[in-house]
Amino acid sequence: MVSGVRTPAFVSTRYLHDLKPVYDPAQLEHRIIDAIRTVVGNGRVSLHEPCFAGNEWRYLKDCLDSTFVSSVGAYVNRFESDIVAYTGTRHAVAVVNGTAALHVALRLAGVLAGDEVLVPALTFVATANAVAYCGAVPHFADSDQQRLGLNPQALREYLRASVELRNGQAVNRATGRVVRAIVPMHAFGHPVDIEGVLALARDFHLAVVEDAAESLGSWVEGKHTGTFGLMGTLSFNGNKTITTGGGGAIITNDPDIARRARHLTTTAKLPHRWEYGHDEVGFNYRMPNLNAALGCAQLEQLPGFLAAKRELYKRYQAAFSPVSDVRLVAEPAGCASNYWLQCLLLEPTEAHLRDRVLAATNDVGLMTRPAWTLLHRLAPYRDSPRMPLPVAESLERRLINLPSSPQLLSEVPS
Amino acid sequence: MVSGVRTPAFVSTRYLHDLKPVYDPAQLEHRIIDAIRTVVGNGRVSLHEPCFAGNEWRYLKDCLDSTFVSSVGAYVNRFESDIVAYTGTRHAVAVVNGTAALHVALRLAGVLAGDEVLVPALTFVATANAVAYCGAVPHFADSDQQRLGLNPQALREYLRASVELRNGQAVNRATGRVVRAIVPMHAFGHPVDIEGVLALARDFHLAVVEDAAESLGSWVEGKHTGTFGLMGTLSFNGNKTITTGGGGAIITNDPDIARRARHLTTTAKLPHRWEYGHDEVGFNYRMPNLNAALGCAQLEQLPGFLAAKRELYKRYQAAFSPVSDVRLVAEPAGCASNYWLQCLLLEPTEAHLRDRVLAATNDVGLMTRPAWTLLHRLAPYRDSPRMPLPVAESLERRLINLPSSPQLLSEVPS
Repeated sequence: MVSGVRTPAFVSTRYLHDLKPVYDPAQLEHRIIDAIRTVVGNGRVSLHEPCFAGNEWRYLKDCLDSTFVSSVGAYVNRFESDIVAYTGTRHAVAVVNGTAALHVALRLAGVLAGDEVLVPALTFVATANAVAYCGAVPHFADSDQQRLGLNPQALREYLRASVELRNGQAVNRATGRVVRAIVPMHAFGHPVDIEGVLALARDFHLAVVEDAAESLGSWVEGKHTGTFGLMGTLSFNGNKTITTGGGGAIITNDPDIARRARHLTTTAKLPHRWEYGHDEVGFNYRMPNLNAALGCAQLEQLPGFLAAKRELYKRYQAAFSPVSDVRLVAEPAGCASNYWLQCLLLEPTEAHLRDRVLAATNDVGLMTRPAWTLLHRLAPYRDSPRMPLPVAESLERRLINLPSSPQLLSEVPS
Repeated sequence: MVSGVRTPAFVSTRYLHDLKPVYDPAQLEHRIIDAIRTVVGNGRVSLHEPCFAGNEWRYLKDCLDSTFVSSVGAYVNRFESDIVAYTGTRHAVAVVNGTAALHVALRLAGVLAGDEVLVPALTFVATANAVAYCGAVPHFADSDQQRLGLNPQALREYLRASVELRNGQAVNRATGRVVRAIVPMHAFGHPVDIEGVLALARDFHLAVVEDAAESLGSWVEGKHTGTFGLMGTLSFNGNKTITTGGGGAIITNDPDIARRARHLTTTAKLPHRWEYGHDEVGFNYRMPNLNAALGCAQLEQLPGFLAAKRELYKRYQAAFSPVSDVRLVAEPAGCASNYWLQCLLLEPTEAHLRDRVLAATNDVGLMTRPAWTLLHRLAPYRDSPRMPLPVAESLERRLINLPSSPQLLSEVPS
């Protein structure tokens, strides 16, 4: 794989600048830069920056004044209630980050050491890491060409051939391990075919934990992503649609699971006036009140962020429509995507230009990124089982994320 | 164990109030309440509250204005530098909490699944949980009567009888497992006999990871706790001497360990201009910049907090000196304790009154707590190996933590 342009220590940047190819509208990277500049204007632009235009300062100050900055406090309770109200789920448990949320969710879904869990190959590494924390093994599934997330139809064909049902459990014929759960991930905010996943899960006795880390504000037929499975998990990392600095949440309609999640993430401490009893190996995973205060202010602005990101998609769409050899990923039919990160896809014939586009855009201060390296290529997951991954491999070669901050348009002179 | 006064649902609190024993200066609980009131005045008093009297608000606002609130940012770097400067260690890696710090530290100390790790029975459950996260088993050690933390002399006698050295590794004769590491914990801020621990560790080939979660600002012969072993771990939870909301740090003098800690806590991501490469199963454990901003402001005030807590000790000492049947725990010779939580010890003959004292003090709004339930009594650790624990058991029956906030004295009319 061609690496980006690097500056050797002994080469002045002036000299390097002279080496850069002159503008050539026939070259794909320059046509892409032009299209992005049409939308975001000149200057340096990040991939995704948080926007603090609401009550952030007020709530943080109030949190400080209360002295409740740690894992107990009014803002944690309010943030959880606000998440419940927004997503239309019954319960939310705020935690330190999306990885912690998924770790605990998998535990509560019954994932045991030695199990396998179906996860997309095309996802951030945390999805597989959470499986590994349980002592289980990720089993990689291919993507849907349009939705980017996993394709339940292709997976169904694969499982029919490679899994058998024994005592109501799906067992991988090749490894002998129980395939316990499936983790659909709504990649870049575009909902997977969740009905297809649910049907598959019923037929193969899989627990469904939705990794909705990227899809706060994404809906399927009016129902929020993350609320279809047994549990869903959210992330409020600094690069997400809303941020708490670092943070995440488990959402569920099941009161017992919510209670268990709260218990497990609070060191499994038993309520008592003063005694320190803990009835299992728990985790120190609760979200601090300070971070929840930020989250409350951010969540108030979410509808505005989503509208801005949708408008950004439309502007990119207009700017890229005359550019041949590329297309923007649009929300699937029947879905509302949050357009967390705008996704540009190179035509398969142009895939070899991906790194040239990445280098050229980043060189001129337009921060772009490729999709994640498919997880089965990473050292810790090289030996994990996987189905054939032709679509994920194709997407990996062709996908480029464009600058996607909600405040981008307001900063562009119109 | 006698439980505290509980309010049955059908009993009105008015009725309960009438049942309360009248003041009787012959009763230990009333003599203790009087002594505490002498120091902290009237009104409700917490066990330990954070004090935000410095640059907290300024730094939080600056952090918000920078938009860098997540795991990368200037305050994270500064907080790490400030921790390095304060503790006199070479490297600090800021993480989401003390539990995460200890988990990663144990991994980097070479603790493997199936190993045993020596930890005190008298500690917060997180010390053992971090061992469990590594797939290892905590092996419980007894306490020192004066220092509260583990007693290396007693442990040496025990290990001589129960461990043998094979190929340069200590092997537990009873379980056949390698005893890989030892985690001295500086309980309530009082330093353990660290030289004794280091000598023991040398003789039995144990890695030393100091759990200094409670001992920021505690020193042994002028050297900071947590800097004697291979690594030390700190906590900045809301109840600690300084707080970041939730937070912790790994400190070490070893540059390779620091580099590895930084890598493992950042999802093991390999540096690259845009690619998402991860070379092992890493963790999402870095401290958000927002929390580090709070930490920088708190650390500036640490010397003042320590002076106030030392003064509080002196006042309690004066107030309790006429009270028979109790004594305050003082810093060990040659050490400076941070006096994180003031520790009152009942005489062994009065141990049966512990819960009466706890109930009476909490009933009148003076928040007190017992020591932790010894970890070998908790369900998840009931089957863990342990040495005889007579001292820890005695301390558990007799120790009561008193209100210990640094700002307590300034709020008392003098």
